[in-house]
Amino acid sequence: MLIVMKHLATQDQIDCVVKFIEKKGYTARPIPGGERVSIGILYNKGSVDASLFQNLPGVKEVIPITRPYKQVSREFKPEDTIIRIGSLTIGGKDLTIMAGPCAIESEKQAMTIANHVVKSGAHIFRGGAFKPRTSPYSFQGLGEEGLKILAKVRKETGMPVVTEVMDFQTFDIVEEYTDIIQIGTRNMQNFSLLRRAGKAKKPVLLKRGMAATIEEWLMAAEYILEEGNSQVILCERGVRTFVNHSRNTLDISAIPVVKKESHLPIIVDPSHAAGIRDQVAPLSLAAVAVEANGLIIEVHHAPDEALSDGAQSLYPEQFDLLCQKIKTMHSLFTRQ
Amino acid sequence: MLIVMKHLATQDQIDCVVKFIEKKGYTARPIPGGERVSIGILYNKGSVDASLFQNLPGVKEVIPITRPYKQVSREFKPEDTIIRIGSLTIGGKDLTIMAGPCAIESEKQAMTIANHVVKSGAHIFRGGAFKPRTSPYSFQGLGEEGLKILAKVRKETGMPVVTEVMDFQTFDIVEEYTDIIQIGTRNMQNFSLLRRAGKAKKPVLLKRGMAATIEEWLMAAEYILEEGNSQVILCERGVRTFVNHSRNTLDISAIPVVKKESHLPIIVDPSHAAGIRDQVAPLSLAAVAVEANGLIIEVHHAPDEALSDGAQSLYPEQFDLLCQKIKTMHSLFTRQ
Amino acid sequence: MLIVMKHLATQDQIDCVVKFIEKKGYTARPIPGGERVSIGILYNKGSVDASLFQNLPGVKEVIPITRPYKQVSREFKPEDTIIRIGSLTIGGKDLTIMAGPCAIESEKQAMTIANHVVKSGAHIFRGGAFKPRTSPYSFQGLGEEGLKILAKVRKETGMPVVTEVMDFQTFDIVEEYTDIIQIGTRNMQNFSLLRRAGKAKKPVLLKRGMAATIEEWLMAAEYILEEGNSQVILCERGVRTFVNHSRNTLDISAIPVVKKESHLPIIVDPSHAAGIRDQVAPLSLAAVAVEANGLIIEVHHAPDEALSDGAQSLYPEQFDLLCQKIKTMHSLFTRQ
Amino acid sequence: MLIVMKHLATQDQIDCVVKFIEKKGYTARPIPGGERVSIGILYNKGSVDASLFQNLPGVKEVIPITRPYKQVSREFKPEDTIIRIGSLTIGGKDLTIMAGPCAIESEKQAMTIANHVVKSGAHIFRGGAFKPRTSPYSFQGLGEEGLKILAKVRKETGMPVVTEVMDFQTFDIVEEYTDIIQIGTRNMQNFSLLRRAGKAKKPVLLKRGMAATIEEWLMAAEYILEEGNSQVILCERGVRTFVNHSRNTLDISAIPVVKKESHLPIIVDPSHAAGIRDQVAPLSLAAVAVEANGLIIEVHHAPDEALSDGAQSLYPEQFDLLCQKIKTMHSLFTRQ
Repeated sequence: MLIVMKHLATQDQIDCVVKFIEKKGYTARPIPGGERVSIGILYNKGSVDASLFQNLPGVKEVIPITRPYKQVSREFKPEDTIIRIGSLTIGGKDLTIMAGPCAIESEKQAMTIANHVVKSGAHIFRGGAFKPRTSPYSFQGLGEEGLKILAKVRKETGMPVVTEVMDFQTFDIVEEYTDIIQIGTRNMQNFSLLRRAGKAKKPVLLKRGMAATIEEWLMAAEYILEEGNSQVILCERGVRTFVNHSRNTLDISAIPVVKKESHLPIIVDPSHAAGIRDQVAPLSLAAVAVEANGLIIEVHHAPDEALSDGAQSLYPEQFDLLCQKIKTMHSLFTRQ
Repeated sequence: MLIVMKHLATQDQIDCVVKFIEKKGYTARPIPGGERVSIGILYNKGSVDASLFQNLPGVKEVIPITRPYKQVSREFKPEDTIIRIGSLTIGGKDLTIMAGPCAIESEKQAMTIANHVVKSGAHIFRGGAFKPRTSPYSFQGLGEEGLKILAKVRKETGMPVVTEVMDFQTFDIVEEYTDIIQIGTRNMQNFSLLRRAGKAKKPVLLKRGMAATIEEWLMAAEYILEEGNSQVILCERGVRTFVNHSRNTLDISAIPVVKKESHLPIIVDPSHAAGIRDQVAPLSLAAVAVEANGLIIEVHHAPDEALSDGAQSLYPEQFDLLCQKIKTMHSLFTRQ
Repeated sequence: MLIVMKHLATQDQIDCVVKFIEKKGYTARPIPGGERVSIGILYNKGSVDASLFQNLPGVKEVIPITRPYKQVSREFKPEDTIIRIGSLTIGGKDLTIMAGPCAIESEKQAMTIANHVVKSGAHIFRGGAFKPRTSPYSFQGLGEEGLKILAKVRKETGMPVVTEVMDFQTFDIVEEYTDIIQIGTRNMQNFSLLRRAGKAKKPVLLKRGMAATIEEWLMAAEYILEEGNSQVILCERGVRTFVNHSRNTLDISAIPVVKKESHLPIIVDPSHAAGIRDQVAPLSLAAVAVEANGLIIEVHHAPDEALSDGAQSLYPEQFDLLCQKIKTMHSLFTRQ
Repeated sequence: MLIVMKHLATQDQIDCVVKFIEKKGYTARPIPGGERVSIGILYNKGSVDASLFQNLPGVKEVIPITRPYKQVSREFKPEDTIIRIGSLTIGGKDLTIMAGPCAIESEKQAMTIANHVVKSGAHIFRGGAFKPRTSPYSFQGLGEEGLKILAKVRKETGMPVVTEVMDFQTFDIVEEYTDIIQIGTRNMQNFSLLRRAGKAKKPVLLKRGMAATIEEWLMAAEYILEEGNSQVILCERGVRTFVNHSRNTLDISAIPVVKKESHLPIIVDPSHAAGIRDQVAPLSLAAVAVEANGLIIEVHHAPDEALSDGAQSLYPEQFDLLCQKIKTMHSLFTRQ
C-alpha cells in the first residue's frame, strides 16, 4: 500500500499519517520525492483496507501495490534514482562507462589498463580483488593487495573504482577501499550478504543471477533497500539458456522492463553475456540503444596472458573505438 | 572443401577443375563471386585430400571447410548476398523495414494499415493469409482471399509483400502472389518445405526455430540453397527460455554471429520476440545497433480488435515515431 | 463446454441435445464413454451459457471446459484411450515396448535387429525410412525401399511396425505400409501434416516438440482428433535446456501431468532424450516408475557402423537385460 | 594426475612418492581406498609429466585426470563414499529417506510431523530454521529456536536431522545442533560458505544450483573436499527451464551421470523439483528407479496452513503410501 500525500501537505500531516499507520500495527516508511512525499506501508500480511487512510488530512490518494517488491518499485518512487559518486552521477539520462580487467593481477597491469581506459573515456575502473571461481584450483584474486592497487588507480587516474565482495568476512575491508560494492551473479540470492550490503554506506552494483527472473532480481534489491541503503545499481549480464554461441544470452528486453518497473539505474555487462570478444561491441551498442544507464566492460592490454576471462576482454584499441561509437549513439538520445 | 580460383582464371580452367572433381566422384558447384570464382565440393563423406587440387591450373588455394554448412557460409562466399525485389535491395548496408498486421483480416483492414506504414517509411508489407495457430479452433487466416488482398495492397501502395507459406499444397499459390515467401518458426526444420522453397523463384524469409541453435538454422538455410535458391533472408525472432517477462528472449548476439558466419542477410522480428507492445521499440533499436539488415514489425490500427497478436502490434503513430528513430540511428552506421 | 448425459439417457434424448446445440449455431460432438455419453460443444467463440442446456431431458450436468484443448482432455473423456493393433493394446495398464534401429539401412540390418528385439520381448519394431536430418548432406533414409523392409520384418517376426512420416507427399505410402504413423519432434506444429494425420486410418505417434509446452503438445494432438482420428499416442522425448550432459532433458514429470490432463496414452523415448547409450537404461526405468504406457528404444547390433544415432543405440544384449528389468518393475504396478 | 599404488605397496613406498611429489613443487594427497592407496597431485598449473612417477617403487600406474574436478572424481576414488550418522549409512546400496516440513514453525508442528514420518519409515528429519526467501517480507524461519526444536525431535524420535545453513555468521550454531548441514540451491556457488563447510565436522548436503551444470556442481563439492571434509551428499532438485507445468524440471539423467563421475552419494528432492503435490510421488519413484541414494521430501500435516511451500508438501497419509511403494521398488535393486 502506498499513500501519496498532496503537493502541499505539511510535515504535521505526514507525521500524523505515519502515526496512524503504526497504530494499526503496520510499519510506515516515508519516501521523499521531487514533488511530494509518499508513505509506504510495509510488512502487511495480506491486504490493507485502503479506506482507512483515504480521508486523513493531506492524503491525495491510496494506491494498492500489486507487485511483490515495494521500495524498488516505480509505483513507490516515480522519479529515477540518481547515484552520486563525487562529481559523477549514475542514472537518469547519463551513460556511465565502467571498464578494466576481470581481475587485478599486479599494480603494473592495473595501471597500464587504467591509463588506457581513462583516456578512452571510461568513468569508473573495474577490477576484481576477491574472485569467485568455479574451481578451487583457479586464481582466486590478490585479496587485500588487490584492493590497495585499486586505491592507487583511483588516486592516479581520478576514476572511482568498483570491485566485488564475496562474503561477510571481507565486507568491511572491501567497503573501506571501494567506491561501488559489487555483488556477483552467484550471490544474487545470498540474502545475508544482501542484508549486509543494505547497511553499507556505499552504492551497491547488483548483478542478475544467471537464471533469475526480473521479479527475483528486484526482490534481491529490495533486501538491500529494506535495510536502508537505497543506492543500488542493477546489472544485466546475460542469462543461461540452451544457446551455445555465446556464454550467456543477453536479455536485452530486461532493460526496458526494469526501467518501467523500478526507479533504480540499470547497466549492462556485455563481456560476461558474450564470453567472446567479438560480440562485446555489438552487445554494448544494443545496450545503449535500449537506453541502459551504463556499461561495465572487460579490457586487458594482453588478454592472452590474463589470469581470467581473457577471451572476452577487449584490447585497449578496440575499447577506444567502441567508446567513440557508444558516445555517438548515446548523443542521439540525449539530444532528443 | 572450397577451391578458390585465381583472379584471372579462365573459364576453361574452371571447367577443367569441375570435371576433375566429378571424376573423383564428388559434386562440384561453382560459386561466382565479385572478384573471382570459387568451386565447392559437395557430398563428400569424410575429408577430401586437398593436395589433389592444389596444383591444377588456375587454382589459387584450397580451403578445407570445417563448418557443417557450406553454401550458406562466408568461407564459401565472402561477399554479402544482396537480394533484389524490383528497385529494393535487402542486405549489405541497407536497412529494410517490413511492417503490417499479423493476419490479413479484410481488404479494409489491410489497406488502412498499409497506407499508414508506407507513409511512415516501411519498404515491404507483411500480413498472414495462411496462419499457423496453436489451436485448431483459432482463426486460421483468409487463405487465397488474403493473398488477393496482398496483391491489391502491392498494386495500390507499390510495396512488395511478404506472407507465410505453411505447406506443400498451398506453396504454388503463395509463390504466385507474394514477393517474399516466409517460412515460419514452427517449420524451420520441415525439410520437405525447405526443399520446395529451394525450387522457388522468389526470395525466402526463413525464421529461426524457437529452440534452434545457429548451426541448425544455417543448416536449414543450406537445404534451400542446396536446391538452387540462394535468395534467403534469415530472421531472428527470439528463442524460448525460462524468462517470463517477454514471450521469447531476443538473441541479440545471434545477429553479429550470423553475419560473421554467413553471407546471407539477417533481419529481426521484435514483435514475436517481445510479445508485448512496450518492448517492440527498444528491441527494434537494439537490432539496428547490432547492424541487422532489417526489421519485420507488426502494426495494427485497432490492435484490440485484431484476430491475432493484438497485444504485440504497434499503433500506427507508435510505428511512425519508431521509424524516425530507426532511420536516425541507422544513419550513424551508413555515414561511417 | 461439455454436456454429460445421464447414465440411462436414451438415444432420443442424446439426439435432441445435439440438435438443440446445432440450432444455437454451435457444433456438437457426441463422445461415447464406458458408462455414459457426453456431448462436446466445439467452435464456440467466447463462453457459452450453461443454463441453456442444464434442464434438457437426459442431461446430468454441464461442465465448462477451461482448458484450451477439448477432445484430448480427460474432462471430455474420462476413460483411458486404448489403442488396438491386432492383438496388441497400447494404453491403460499395459506397457508397450517399441525397439529397433534409428534408420532402416538394409534388409539384413533390419532383420538382424528385429530378431534380437523380438526375442527380448519388444512388441513393436521401429525404424526410419524417411529421415529428417539437420544436414542436407546426411543420410536421408532408404525411402520406399525402407518401408518394404519394414513390411518384411512384420511378416517374419509378427511385430507391428512404426515409422516416421515427414510430409504430405509421402503420407499415403507411409500410411499404406506402417502400423503406426510417427510424427517427429520437428513437425509437432506442422499443422497441415497434423490435419492429414487426422484423416488417417491408423494410429499416430506424436512426439513432443523440443521446446513445446504440454499445452502446445496437447493442442497439436487436438488437431488430429479434430479431423476425426482419435488414435493418438503421445511421446515424451526430452526438451532442450541449458543442460549439456545429455542431448535433451527428459521431462519426467510430463508423464503424470499428461496422464491427468488427457486420456491419450503416453510413452517415452529415452534414446533421443539421452543421446548417450549409458543413460538409456536408467531413463527407461524412470519412465516405467512414473507409469508411462510404453517405451521406444533405439537398438543396433553394430552401433559404431550405424548411419545415424549410433551413440545412443543399445547393443542387443543391453536391450535384453533392460527388458528384464522393465518387466520386473512394471509387474509391481500391475500387481497393485 | 593420480598415482595408483600397488596392492602390496608399503607405507614407506607411499611416503617416498609423497615426498617426491612435494620436492617437485606440487601438493600430494594420499587417498586410502578399500584395496590400495592412490595419491593425488593437486594445484598443478598445466600438465604434469607422468613419466616422472611411473618408475618409483610401489607405483602401479599413473592416470592423467582430464576432469576439472579431482577429489570428488571416481577416477580419484573408485569406491562409493559411505556416510555414517550413528547407525545410519548414506550411500552405496542404501536408500535413505529424509522427510519433514519446509520450515519449523513450532514445536507442536514439528513433533506432529516427525511422529508421522518416523512411523512411515523416514530415516532423517528435515526442517528449516533459517529460511532463504525471495522476499524480505516473507517468513524467515524461527532461527535458533527452530534449531532447538530440531534437537528435541531428534531426542524424541531418534531420527538425525538436516537443516539449512545460510551464512558464515550462523554456521557455528547450525553445525552444533544439526546432524547434516544443508547448503541450499542459491548458495551452491557461495564459495566462502563452501570453504567453511569444508572445515565442518559434520556431513554436508549440497543442493544443485538452479542453473548449474553437473561440472559446476561437482566443482562446488570439490571446494568442500579440498578444505578437508569428504562427507558430502549431493542433492538434485530440478533445474530452471522453459517448462511451466512444474516449478523446476527434475534432471533425472543427472543421477546416473553423477554416479559415474563421482563417488559421492546423490539424493533427489522431488518436492522442490515439482512444486506441486501431485508430482511428488511419481518423481520420487523415478528417483528410486535410477538408483538415487535417497530422497528428501516435504511433508506437512496441514499444508494449507504451512508458512512456506504448502502446495508441494505431502499429507502424512500420502507420504505413508509413497514410502511403501518406494521400499517395494527399492527392494528390486537390492535383491539383484
